[in-house]
Amino acid sequence: MRFTVDTAELNAAVATVSKALGVRSSVGILEGIYAEAIGDTLLLRCTDLSLQIEATLNVDIQKQGACVLPGRLFSELVRRLPAEETLLSADKNTLLIESGRATTTMQVENAKDYISMPDVNREFSIAISKAALKNMIRQCIFATAQDDSKPILRGVLIELADGKMSMVALDGYRLAMRTEAVTVSGAAKNAVIPARGLLEISRILDDSDEMINMVFSATHVMIDMGHTRIITRLMDGEFIRYRQILPDSHTTHVRVNRTELLDSIERVSLMARESKKNHVKFSFEDGQVTITANSEIGASKEIVNIDRMGSDIDIAFNAKYFSDVLKVLDDEYVCLDMNTNISPCVVKPETGDEYYYLILPVRLFAGN
Amino acid sequence: MRFTVDTAELNAAVATVSKALGVRSSVGILEGIYAEAIGDTLLLRCTDLSLQIEATLNVDIQKQGACVLPGRLFSELVRRLPAEETLLSADKNTLLIESGRATTTMQVENAKDYISMPDVNREFSIAISKAALKNMIRQCIFATAQDDSKPILRGVLIELADGKMSMVALDGYRLAMRTEAVTVSGAAKNAVIPARGLLEISRILDDSDEMINMVFSATHVMIDMGHTRIITRLMDGEFIRYRQILPDSHTTHVRVNRTELLDSIERVSLMARESKKNHVKFSFEDGQVTITANSEIGASKEIVNIDRMGSDIDIAFNAKYFSDVLKVLDDEYVCLDMNTNISPCVVKPETGDEYYYLILPVRLFAGN
Repeated sequence: MRFTVDTAELNAAVATVSKALGVRSSVGILEGIYAEAIGDTLLLRCTDLSLQIEATLNVDIQKQGACVLPGRLFSELVRRLPAEETLLSADKNTLLIESGRATTTMQVENAKDYISMPDVNREFSIAISKAALKNMIRQCIFATAQDDSKPILRGVLIELADGKMSMVALDGYRLAMRTEAVTVSGAAKNAVIPARGLLEISRILDDSDEMINMVFSATHVMIDMGHTRIITRLMDGEFIRYRQILPDSHTTHVRVNRTELLDSIERVSLMARESKKNHVKFSFEDGQVTITANSEIGASKEIVNIDRMGSDIDIAFNAKYFSDVLKVLDDEYVCLDMNTNISPCVVKPETGDEYYYLILPVRLFAGN
Repeated sequence: MRFTVDTAELNAAVATVSKALGVRSSVGILEGIYAEAIGDTLLLRCTDLSLQIEATLNVDIQKQGACVLPGRLFSELVRRLPAEETLLSADKNTLLIESGRATTTMQVENAKDYISMPDVNREFSIAISKAALKNMIRQCIFATAQDDSKPILRGVLIELADGKMSMVALDGYRLAMRTEAVTVSGAAKNAVIPARGLLEISRILDDSDEMINMVFSATHVMIDMGHTRIITRLMDGEFIRYRQILPDSHTTHVRVNRTELLDSIERVSLMARESKKNHVKFSFEDGQVTITANSEIGASKEIVNIDRMGSDIDIAFNAKYFSDVLKVLDDEYVCLDMNTNISPCVVKPETGDEYYYLILPVRLFAGN
């Protein structure tokens, strides 16, 4: 192959696809970038076989062809090339890169030896804006499990039905659920996407209203953004049946300023962190919540104004589970619904029913 | 003690001194911040006994006194306090911090148990601007040794004589020397300052022309910036006698654009890094230098325009030793003086004699 390409466009495309580059892969060729020049288009592809990212760009092709470039070296070099245009030409074994005063040759591998993920057939797809998908991921992904005790919990459940998409993440201590109206083509469907794949998807998405397609097969999901496509494997196995743990009533309802509550929790949690228990106690009364933490080296207390309906309640939480959700919400006020100090607390924005978060309390003993 | 303080000023002072906080110190009390309220001044001090940083700030003192605060917890809390003013009050064992809706108590230690470095008597001092001292450190410190094979080389030699201060750093492969006119009070003097202390000093300095004092005793140096003072231990032992290795003539003189040379070296070094030898070869001819590197997976070549006087020369270097110096110089052009491909290369800015850098080449064998 032989083509001339805009250096900045090449750099942007390589930076995008190389997020899926295999690192010290057991399959050596996956440490490379697959490059294919056909017609007036260059296709770049990286995969570690659980995540695959492709980018296409328009280039001036003099000779068609394909090869596999050394991934790390090529992407570092492309970032630093001196000229606005770069000429790449490859024979069977060697790629020549010419850009201004810089000339580099590097060994390439045969395109026929490259392995990639299966094509995703387009039997089921939804349309959603980039901004909405990015925001859904941001508001759910932090609640996925970080350990492997239940591997399925390292994924996010996607539920598609009745013109709505829900994302659900839970780790055994808290649950985050975000719903969005989408255009669904096809019947109801569930899928579990690995958190790592979703994270890379959200990094590539911007906050625009541009519509993109999510295409589901039985085993994979593809996010099709035109010049960029991301494919991630779906997770096997059944997700936790979470609906039965969602409380259907509450005895205490609290409305509180989100950033005031967040700032107070973060200060108090500095003291909580010094103790072995690492929990923060909330005493909700009429008009205010008192937030406290104790450790061997001291004690912290904060008072935040609230509106409350229902009974007083003393309840304790792992501070991180509370501050995590307050950080991803954008509303000025949030609402908390509680029953007892051993049953879950539900956190929602003051308006709308798109977001739902549930935290299990930690048990309070006398003297805490 | 009991006093009211501007929260932002307290935060800035704590952030400054806590750079010298002992981390998991064998002397537990050094993980604390010494605080002393006298007259209308609060003194804060941290030390790990090789570096000590002090800050003073004006506060409204209602009761004098001193204590040792838990360093990490206090500094993290101060960063987040909600109100513009904070009231601190301590009895023998407990500090109470009140700032808006936040109330924290923490255990403190007795000020009498704190250890600090000896006062630096003011027998020998120099005056220098903050910007000049910061720049001297930046242009030398990177050439200090990173390993402990010769501990003295982890320090920077300071030579004071005839109204000039020189800083010299060397690691066995390269040497950086920077000279600056200063006001010296006292006779000629040498001292070796640990690189870590110099680094913390340069982080606290800004780029202003404000004059500050460096005060030397036999064992310590103090940088006195008024409200902030930094003391660092001097290193024992004799520094390498470096003057005998500085070449006194050259047979090739080259003038080259600094950023063009730097960019080319950085690209070529990507390829050099792939090989075991990790060196970059320079072929200086009339009008251009050709920079090359080879590895098993490819080859890079760059051509940069130069002005040259004297003979052609082929010479090879560890790329990092060359790019390091090109990064810390600010001049548009630099000059290189060379003799043979096994003798040192001297790098200087095109104008001025304040900076001098020397690199040992790596030996070229046939076939390289």
